[in-house]
Amino acid sequence: MATTQLEPVQEPKYWHLKTVLQEALDSEFSVGEILPNERDLAARFGVARATLRQALEQLELEGRLQRRRGVGTTVAPPRMGIAVGTTGASEGAWPGSGSESWRTVGCAEAVPPAAVAAVLGTGTDELVHTVRRVRMMQGQSVATELIFVPSGSVPALPALLTPAAHAPAVLRELHAMALESEDRAVELGSARAEDAKQLDRLPGAPVLVVTTRYRTGQGVAAVSVATYRADTCRLTFGETGTVQISHHEQEERREAS
Amino acid sequence: MATTQLEPVQEPKYWHLKTVLQEALDSEFSVGEILPNERDLAARFGVARATLRQALEQLELEGRLQRRRGVGTTVAPPRMGIAVGTTGASEGAWPGSGSESWRTVGCAEAVPPAAVAAVLGTGTDELVHTVRRVRMMQGQSVATELIFVPSGSVPALPALLTPAAHAPAVLRELHAMALESEDRAVELGSARAEDAKQLDRLPGAPVLVVTTRYRTGQGVAAVSVATYRADTCRLTFGETGTVQISHHEQEERREAS
Repeated sequence: MATTQLEPVQEPKYWHLKTVLQEALDSEFSVGEILPNERDLAARFGVARATLRQALEQLELEGRLQRRRGVGTTVAPPRMGIAVGTTGASEGAWPGSGSESWRTVGCAEAVPPAAVAAVLGTGTDELVHTVRRVRMMQGQSVATELIFVPSGSVPALPALLTPAAHAPAVLRELHAMALESEDRAVELGSARAEDAKQLDRLPGAPVLVVTTRYRTGQGVAAVSVATYRADTCRLTFGETGTVQISHHEQEERREAS
Repeated sequence: MATTQLEPVQEPKYWHLKTVLQEALDSEFSVGEILPNERDLAARFGVARATLRQALEQLELEGRLQRRRGVGTTVAPPRMGIAVGTTGASEGAWPGSGSESWRTVGCAEAVPPAAVAAVLGTGTDELVHTVRRVRMMQGQSVATELIFVPSGSVPALPALLTPAAHAPAVLRELHAMALESEDRAVELGSARAEDAKQLDRLPGAPVLVVTTRYRTGQGVAAVSVATYRADTCRLTFGETGTVQISHHEQEERREAS
C-alpha cells in the first residue's frame, strides 16, 4: 500500500478521510476482506487514530464496514433488502399470518413500555401478552420483535396455557379478528441489551426501530416494536417489496446544485 | 447533583452509564436544558470521559440528546413524526404534486450516482435532470432530497429553460404521466457534506436515507433519494400518517422473556 497524504480541506478531517478510505475500499478491497489494523491505517493516511476511528464509524454507519468482535473490521457485503409490512397495497396482515421469515421465540405477560401502554390504552402496571419473535435472513438474525397484545384484544384466550402454547394462541386469537388498518413508524435507535444479544451486536449498536399499530374496528388491538440491524438491513416498503439501489455507490460524482 | 456510583455489571460500561443517564434525564432535566459539561458529568458518574462520550452518543442516536455546535449538549424534544410517501393506500403521488412541506431549491443536469443510474437505466456518464428539494417542519429543515429524472422520462421538456423554470418544468412533465406505482427503501446513512449543511448538521451525522422508485407503464421514470435527520425525525408510513409512539420511554420496566 502506498502512503496517501491528505491535503488540508475545510470539511472535518474524518470526513475527508472517510471519502479517501471509501475509494480505497472500492479499488483495493473485496467483500469480507479484513482491513489492516488501526495503527497501520492511521500511519498510511497520516492521521491520528481518533480521526481514523471517526472515519471508520462513518463507514460502519453507511454499511460499508462491519466491526466484529474477535474478527476485526471487514468490508461489508451490500445491505440486504428486507420487506417491511404487507405486500398487498391496501390490506394489512396480522403478524405471523403469512409465510414469513419470523420465528416465535417466546411469550410472556409483561408490563409494556409506557409509550406502548399509552397507545394500547392499558393501565400503567397492566400486564399484556408479549410475543417475542426473531427474523432470520440468509441464516442471520436481522431483527427482533416484541408484539404487545392487551388481554382485552384476545378475550377468548384460554386462561390456562402452557408456555409453548401461549404465543400460538395469542396470534391465533388476533388472526380471528378483522384487521382494519396498520401503520408504521421507522426511527433510529440503539440496540437494548437483550435485542443486541439476539442480533449478535453490542448493546447500543445502531438499529432501525419499526413500530406498527394494528387496528380493528375497536381501536388499536396490538402494537409491535421490531428492531432491525441498521448495519446490514435496508427496509423496503411497497408493492414490489424491493428497491435494488445500494447506497454503497451513493457518492455523487458531479454534485447537483 | 449527588454523586452516583456505578456498580460493576456485565454489560459494557457505557451501556450501563447510558441507562443511568437516561434516568437522570427523565427525573432532573427538561427539554432544551443544557447538560453539564463532560468533565463534570464524568466526575459525577465516576467514569472516564471516553466512556461518558460513548454513552452520550447512544443517547444522541436514540434522539434523547442533541449536540449542537456552540450550544453544547441539550435534552432533545420528542422526535417529529414525519409522513413519508402517500396518504392514500394504493395510489402513489409524484413528488411536488400535492400540498407538501417540500420546497424546491434548485435544478441542474448532473450524472447521478452509479447505483441510481443503474435503476434508471441511464448510461454511465449520462446527465439527468436533478431537482433538489428541502423539507421544512416546524421551521427546521428536516430533509433534503435529490430527484433524478432522465431526459427520456420527460421528452416534451422545452430545450431552453431558465434556471428558475427548470425544476417546475421537470416536475410538470412528470405530473402529466400516469404513475403506476412507487416503492421505497429506508436505510441508515451518514450525511454528505452538502446535505449536512442544509440540515444544519456536521458531515457524517446519522441520517435516514429514503429511496423511492417512481414507475410508469414504461418502467422507472424517476428516482428520489431523500435524506432525513435521524436525530429529530421519526418516519411514518400508512393511512393515518402518524404513529404517536415515542421511543423516549421505550425501556421496558419488566423484560418480556
